Amino acid sequence: MRADPERLRFEITARDGAARAGRLHLGAGPVETPAFIPLATRGTVRSLTSSEVAELGYEMVLGNTFHLLLSPGPDRIAALGGLRRFMGWRGAIITDSGGFQVFSLAHGNVADEIKGRRRRSAGAGAVLEIGEDGVRFRSYVDGSERFLGPEDSMAIQAALGSDIALAFDECTPYHADRDYTARSVERTHRWLDRCLAWHERAGPRHQAVFGIVQGGVHEDLRRQSAERVSAAPVDGLAIGGTLGRDKDEMRGVVGMTVGQLDAGVPRHLLGIGEPDDLVEGIAVGVDLFDCAVPTRLARHAMALAPLPDARFRFDLRRAKFAGDQAPLVEGCPCATCGAHTRAYIHYLSGAEEMTGVRLLAVHNLAYLERLVHGAREAIRAGRFAGYRERVLGGAPPWRALTEYGR
Amino acid sequence: MRADPERLRFEITARDGAARAGRLHLGAGPVETPAFIPLATRGTVRSLTSSEVAELGYEMVLGNTFHLLLSPGPDRIAALGGLRRFMGWRGAIITDSGGFQVFSLAHGNVADEIKGRRRRSAGAGAVLEIGEDGVRFRSYVDGSERFLGPEDSMAIQAALGSDIALAFDECTPYHADRDYTARSVERTHRWLDRCLAWHERAGPRHQAVFGIVQGGVHEDLRRQSAERVSAAPVDGLAIGGTLGRDKDEMRGVVGMTVGQLDAGVPRHLLGIGEPDDLVEGIAVGVDLFDCAVPTRLARHAMALAPLPDARFRFDLRRAKFAGDQAPLVEGCPCATCGAHTRAYIHYLSGAEEMTGVRLLAVHNLAYLERLVHGAREAIRAGRFAGYRERVLGGAPPWRALTEYGR
Repeated sequence: MRADPERLRFEITARDGAARAGRLHLGAGPVETPAFIPLATRGTVRSLTSSEVAELGYEMVLGNTFHLLLSPGPDRIAALGGLRRFMGWRGAIITDSGGFQVFSLAHGNVADEIKGRRRRSAGAGAVLEIGEDGVRFRSYVDGSERFLGPEDSMAIQAALGSDIALAFDECTPYHADRDYTARSVERTHRWLDRCLAWHERAGPRHQAVFGIVQGGVHEDLRRQSAERVSAAPVDGLAIGGTLGRDKDEMRGVVGMTVGQLDAGVPRHLLGIGEPDDLVEGIAVGVDLFDCAVPTRLARHAMALAPLPDARFRFDLRRAKFAGDQAPLVEGCPCATCGAHTRAYIHYLSGAEEMTGVRLLAVHNLAYLERLVHGAREAIRAGRFAGYRERVLGGAPPWRALTEYGR
Repeated sequence: MRADPERLRFEITARDGAARAGRLHLGAGPVETPAFIPLATRGTVRSLTSSEVAELGYEMVLGNTFHLLLSPGPDRIAALGGLRRFMGWRGAIITDSGGFQVFSLAHGNVADEIKGRRRRSAGAGAVLEIGEDGVRFRSYVDGSERFLGPEDSMAIQAALGSDIALAFDECTPYHADRDYTARSVERTHRWLDRCLAWHERAGPRHQAVFGIVQGGVHEDLRRQSAERVSAAPVDGLAIGGTLGRDKDEMRGVVGMTVGQLDAGVPRHLLGIGEPDDLVEGIAVGVDLFDCAVPTRLARHAMALAPLPDARFRFDLRRAKFAGDQAPLVEGCPCATCGAHTRAYIHYLSGAEEMTGVRLLAVHNLAYLERLVHGAREAIRAGRFAGYRERVLGGAPPWRALTEYGR
């Protein structure tokens, strides 16, 4: 643990069971936790402007080292004053290390792999060589040969000027065997040391660094990794890699791993953000989440909703919504639900009008912001168990805290 | 002239030469003129929400009968409370008759034809038969056979519930010869009578109807058409069809045609909206304009700017903008220019992120709103000639009225 207060100060203001509410103090300002962090993978939260994301209540977004390396490039962003200024964002920024993306090129789509589905994405670029120093690959933008390793990743994140950098790691897929995962975790630990050494020497003074705990679904490997990463001078701990075949396995792995982590630093569960996963993660003590779910669902005409039996979502393209004058979710306080009907969004989705994507992105992001906001309130009030139960049972986030079930 | 005050009341509040400023009173509220009307062709101003369009200062949008007929259909929109309610728009709506689109299928892209360029659009559907009763064509949505004629167009516009309906007309292309144009204008006049008869019998009581003056580039035909349409019981006059090979010819045709129109009713120049065309049209007494320019340019990464030698636009994709920290236009009061750089929009355009389209749509629509706003102020102050000259000379709209040239 380093937890350097110059880079980051983490204040836990309330506890309720294993759940905790707090405040991350970063150079760019405070971030209330538990927090969901929308993805601004390529320097924009897809379909939205930076000011809209702030108006939705978000205080931090996640930018991606791999994509921003390929275009417009870290030198360009540095020359333009860093990623915050480049995208006109006034809040905090955490940057992913690029490890997840570059290993997706090698292992297939790691996002699918985390859920145990084996599928290779075609045409997204290609890995040429994986070695102790990092990964050589071909750019999907211009076909050029590129390299990403621990020092490169930290140098890029330094150029982007994020408030929190993530250490470079290998994100092992679900289908990797125990031996491969064990060797990979060892290398990820060596990479963590190299990341921290580079950052100590050349990193921005106010940038915090989170280490990433790997180990796949193997309890002993997760335990070793949690110990090893916790012992390093990091400012926070992230949980990465495959978490299991299904949600039950995932919850087991997350709960067990979180139990190994130092209680005094922020804990970030990488790439997870469905409504039930958020409340379950918060219940075991996770502070930060990021996920493509709200914006990706929007691009596929899907709305988040309090529907536990349907993965908390529904598909607006279904014919039954063509004449439906209800808002996406009755009672939802978001701008989309205040002004537009399911029928309109059904129509826009069918017509492939980008306004439809936007209206759904606003709703989905508002939904998750309400959900974590409610969780914070519940924890402060010592009522998180009931909140969790009601969200999992189908209460909308804006009612789960106080009114539901009365 | 009918100019029924129950449907529409047009108040001219100031004149300056041939230019006039006024107010259109419609069921949905007032519209200050001269006004630019953004296209909501398919029930959305592309990439924007209805509330954003209102925040930009717009009081009226234009919906399209042809596209909304094919999807989601007038019955659906009527069942959902009309087009205003369907799209969550609080302002006024004018609907195009569908004539322009359906004749584009027959004649090639009439938008190009208006400018004298001959080009056929492929795959956009096909005209099966043009007759005295209307046009039989194949839907680009589902391949079904459809029919649109004067009564159908009025019935659809009645179902959409627009504040102003346009009479069904043939929009003759530039390459049509004088004989074809003369016969076409006659039929357009017969269609106007049929539209008015249908509307008198079955149209919404509060919906105004504008007649359309055709005649191509032929002065005698335009004159005959202006007389004939002015004599009909219409609430306003629109100028449609081809206006010439270039801007000089267009200005001649518009000036001559406007000179023939009754001074007491609103005059709408259809499909025209480049900055110089707006000030030139206003100068000869046009009150309303609609055009795809601001939103279409946005989709092609183009920004409106005070650049008279470059058609008042520039292309953000050009490499020289990659590191440009200036806003799109220095001093522009729009939300995009207040928060974002050319470099960011250049990057978003190259990355094909829809946020880039939106940021440009906001700027381009704000630009034209400022331009007509300035024109209204200038007319009221008796200073329109100087305003026009300064806009044409390269003054930004927000400075052309008072500060420029001091």
